[in-house]
Parts: sequence; C-alpha cells; structure tokens
Amino acid sequence: MTYARKNIAEIAGYTPGEQPQGQKLVKLNTNENPYPPSPMVQVALRDFDYSRLRLYSEPSARMVREAAASAFGIVKDNIICGNGSDDLLTIALRTFVDQGGKVAFTTPSYSLYPVLGQLQGSQLCPVELDDDFQLPDNAAQLAEGATLFLLCRPNAPTGNSFPKARMEKLCREFAGVVWIDEAYADFASDNCLDFVNRFPNVVVSRTLSKSYSLAGLRLGLAFSTTDLIAEMNKVKDSYNVDMLAQHLAAAALRDAGYMRENAQRIRQTRLATTARLRELGCTVLPSETNFLFVRPPKPAAWLFKALRDEGYLVRYFNLPRVSEYLRVTIGTETEMQGFIETMARLLATE
Amino acid sequence: MTYARKNIAEIAGYTPGEQPQGQKLVKLNTNENPYPPSPMVQVALRDFDYSRLRLYSEPSARMVREAAASAFGIVKDNIICGNGSDDLLTIALRTFVDQGGKVAFTTPSYSLYPVLGQLQGSQLCPVELDDDFQLPDNAAQLAEGATLFLLCRPNAPTGNSFPKARMEKLCREFAGVVWIDEAYADFASDNCLDFVNRFPNVVVSRTLSKSYSLAGLRLGLAFSTTDLIAEMNKVKDSYNVDMLAQHLAAAALRDAGYMRENAQRIRQTRLATTARLRELGCTVLPSETNFLFVRPPKPAAWLFKALRDEGYLVRYFNLPRVSEYLRVTIGTETEMQGFIETMARLLATE
Repeated sequence: MTYARKNIAEIAGYTPGEQPQGQKLVKLNTNENPYPPSPMVQVALRDFDYSRLRLYSEPSARMVREAAASAFGIVKDNIICGNGSDDLLTIALRTFVDQGGKVAFTTPSYSLYPVLGQLQGSQLCPVELDDDFQLPDNAAQLAEGATLFLLCRPNAPTGNSFPKARMEKLCREFAGVVWIDEAYADFASDNCLDFVNRFPNVVVSRTLSKSYSLAGLRLGLAFSTTDLIAEMNKVKDSYNVDMLAQHLAAAALRDAGYMRENAQRIRQTRLATTARLRELGCTVLPSETNFLFVRPPKPAAWLFKALRDEGYLVRYFNLPRVSEYLRVTIGTETEMQGFIETMARLLATE
Repeated sequence: MTYARKNIAEIAGYTPGEQPQGQKLVKLNTNENPYPPSPMVQVALRDFDYSRLRLYSEPSARMVREAAASAFGIVKDNIICGNGSDDLLTIALRTFVDQGGKVAFTTPSYSLYPVLGQLQGSQLCPVELDDDFQLPDNAAQLAEGATLFLLCRPNAPTGNSFPKARMEKLCREFAGVVWIDEAYADFASDNCLDFVNRFPNVVVSRTLSKSYSLAGLRLGLAFSTTDLIAEMNKVKDSYNVDMLAQHLAAAALRDAGYMRENAQRIRQTRLATTARLRELGCTVLPSETNFLFVRPPKPAAWLFKALRDEGYLVRYFNLPRVSEYLRVTIGTETEMQGFIETMARLLATE
C-alpha cells in the first residue's frame, strides 16, 4: 500500500554525485569549478542588507534577466530563470510532456533526463549516441512521437560536442521542442544560442554552476521564444529564485570577464591533463567541457575505489557503454598534478 | 499552434501578490513580517565564506532538518525541505496526483491550490467552506475519489482556523493524503503537528516566510511519515535548497525564541487593529494569522484602490464569496495606526 502515484512508487529516483562532508578529498566528481566565484559576488554578499529577506523576491528575477541579457546578447523577455537548470528541466517536462506522452533524450547523457521522464509518468524514448558518442544523423526520426527532446551539448558524461549542422538538422526535423542543455558551453569552442532566434521550437539552457563557480547558489537560465517562455512561466514557482541568489547571480553575470579567464585556465589544464593521461595509456575523449571522460588501461570500477582511497573523488557510472570510463572534473593545476601522479602510481602497480 | 500541453496552454497561471519596485508603499498585501529576521541570520550571512558557493549544496538540507528537528520536536528523517513551501506543494501534486486524477482543496483558500492542480492536468475538486468559512463536517465525503486534499489551517485569505476534532475526522475518513498547510500556525493558538505521528496519510507544512521573516529566502518544511517523505524525496530536485538558504534558515530556526517574540507582538497589533476596524464599522473575521480579513462598509474594490492612492497596499480578490473583503497584513504598530487613520478618513467621505 502506498499513497504515491504508481510511476513514483516504482522508481528509485535520481542519485546525485557524492558531496563528502568533513573529509579531505580532492573533489573531481561533480564538475564544480575549482576557482571561487567572482569577487563581485563577495561584494554583493557583503553589501546585502539581511533585513530585506523579510520581503518576497521579485518573481521574474528581473535583475538576473537584465544582467543575462547583457552577458548573452538576448533580450530579457526571451529569458526565464530557474533554481538551478535542473529546475528548468523539470519545468520543461511539466510544460511540454503529458503523463503517458513521450520524451526523447540522448544516451549516454545526463542521467537526470530519464528520471525526469519517469517522474512525469511519460514514456521514455532514449536515442543512442553513435559509437564515437556522436548525435546520430537521424535523431529526429528516432525520436518520432516525442514532444520534447533533451540533449546536452557539449555532452555529459562523455565531454564531446556535436556538429552544429547536425544540431540544426535535428531542430528542423523534430516536431516538438528541442532542449539544448549548454551547461558546459563556456568551456567549448562554439554554442547554439543563435538557434533561439532562428527556430520556433528550441530552448537553450545555461547554468551558473560550472563556469561561474556558483553550484551552491542554484541559478539556471533558459533562452527561447517569447511564446515558449510564456508557457514555462505558467509552470515555474512564482518565487523560484530567492532574493540573495538574484543579487549574487546578477553580480556574477555582470563580471563575465572573470568567468572567461577561469574557463580559459581550465581549458589549459584540460589540455595538459589530457596529454599526461594519454601518456599513461588512458583513452581520453576530446573534451569541450570542464571534465574528461577517461578509459584507463585497468578496470575503471577498481580505479575509482583506489583513487578514493588515495583522496581523489571522481565519478564512475556503472551503466551500459560507460562502465569502462571515469569522469574526471578539471581541478586546479596543482590538484591535477597530484591526480596524475596518483594515477601513474596506481596504474604502475601489478 | 502551441508546443505546450493542453492543460498548460489553456490556463493563465498563478498571479502572485504585487511586489512594488521603487515606490513608497506600506506593504500589507502579501503577509510578510514587518520585523527583520533574527540577528542570528545577519551573523550567519556575515560569516558565510562566498568561495564555498562554487560547491553544490548538501542535497537533503541536513543542517536545516537538524535545526528544524530541534525547533519542532520531530526527528529529521520525518522532514523534507523545499525552496519555499510552494515548492513542497508542487512536489505534493507530482507525488500524489496523476494527470487526470483528482485533487481536493478547500475554497476560498490559497489560490495556488487549483493552479497546481491545473498544472498537473488533474481534475479539480473544490470543497466549499461553510457560511462562516468553516471546514464542512463531511469534507472527506465531498472529496471522494481525490488522492490528495490540500487545506490551509489557519486558512488564507479568511484568517480563521478549523476545530482540531474536525481536522482529525477528515484525516481519518479521507482515503488519500491530507496536506495541512500551516504557513500561519505560529500566529495561532494550536496546530496539527502531532498528526504526523498519529496518521499514516498526513503531511504538515510550515514556512519560514511569515513568522521567521524570511519570505525572500525561500524555505519551506514538510513533516510526515518516513514513507511519504521518501516518495516526495524522489520527486524533489536534488539541490532545491541552495547553500546560503541552508545556512541562514538553520540560523533562524536555532533562534526560535526571537520568532516567537515577533509573533506575539504581531498578535497584539492584530487585536488592537481588529478593535479599531470594528469601531469603523468593518466586519473583521476572527484571525489566527498575521493578517485580517475585513469587510468594510464601503465597496472593497473601491477601498482597495483608494488605499493604494494613499500609500497602503492591501490585497483584494475579485473572486466568488470574497469580493466584499480586503485582506490586510499586520504591519508594525506605527504602520497599522497610519492604516487605521487612513481607513477612518476614507470611510468618512461621502
């Protein structure tokens, strides 16, 4: 006997990456930024008058949308803010997919996508990436009947991107809404933000969790047509972004130059780490993100545990097609040097 | 042509109370607390190291649940935290009500309840309160077939409470989950928190928005059996409560004495304001909340506008049964004296 809906009672739910409490671990498991947020965030925090918290926040997070409009060159009426981009993904399911309807998503990709479909009570339509983790050319056909297509570009956990021409083809051919999750776009060589003004059925989402070093603040952005934004606004909680988050996120967005410098540093560390790992006999997928997807010459499950014992927490997914890989977030240069040395030692043992 | 689900495209969505920007208005329209949050919140804000925001927050908001466990005398495994209690209400619909299923809620009450049902694509089952805005004795029968019953005790916007015996009867007789929204319980003479340990089908929710003066922070709490909490945890976003909100909410909950002093002050102002309004010829419902539901001797819609012109923003609902009333939040003593004087002047005009 349960009071929950059948589709809820039957599932396990989503398991987020571990947030170790009180242990001394180098955290390379949830794609956090190793550098602190912009000093402008510190100033905004210091100057915030706590007594204002007695009032409700502005429902549309206007100050964030205005800062984002400047940072991204998209007018603020084409922007919706979420309590993290996970909140926006939930809004996507609730706006565009009926219970019993069908949601498409690439796989392997962000493991939250199928869980969100299960929570909505929708039929899942996984679209397998090619052998080299590329978006298949016939993705729209494979997703036929779905009203929403979720994909991540660059992709997680594989780290690679998809050709823009193939993205355009999908958006043109798919009859429903294409949601392009660009959580890692600031670490990539291009992005699909221009699609927002070119297609009636595209949403592009961003997050301040990775490149802006604000995972703990929860601030996601989605860009789309005013029509799609209006429908999603009906579904979002009126006060989904709290007052402090609005102030701090706006401060971070106004200092995008700081973010870009950090992203550039991370790209450099990514290059160096990729080269070192390949020297150690690892297969490393070409990454356009702040993490690497690594197939080591020893079993990944064993290495995951051995690394943890040595103080390095990475991510291991015991799932089809990716169980031979580790996902390793790019930390500081010093952290990655320590990681490489530990990897070298572990891979050298019999 | 729309990409949205039918139930979304067809509705207008929820309209939150106005948050005037940059105008000098005495804000008596959204039941905010006129007093600042606990000084402990100020300390927690000052001591927070902004660089920690680069990391994800603890998914279960454990520090908040621990502080709430102490404050409310309920073990932390029977608590779930929301990004405001609106977030928890959304989780309730998504956990307990299918699209096409039925959700019951009292009316007149919090106008978000039917909107949440519409967003879920559920059938709405409104249960009319009695002539004196009391919960009907046969509420469970009136809600037959529903899997969730939402009600607010004390009720908004009417301000009155329901007898506890009648609440028990509903919880005993209703086959689904009874959600008791206790947003205003700290201003009332009793509450139903003890139901959590006595019924398998009851959830009691609280918020830090009203009595704790933290509307802008977004922190809601729900108390229930471990079974119902587990199902709701599957539905909630992993990181729904951000790191700053966790720290500040925990600080506020550890200083519940400060909250109780403010609540007591507000109750005293409520008593005085009630008496003065009655002297002016208003009908004032007995209130167990931080607001009054007032039927003035002149048309409420006119008075709402006249008050706004005089700098006092109250809430007017142009809805059946309540269109002759104004809902007036209790502000500071000074604010309420000014309000009363303005009311006296407006009601004295021809």
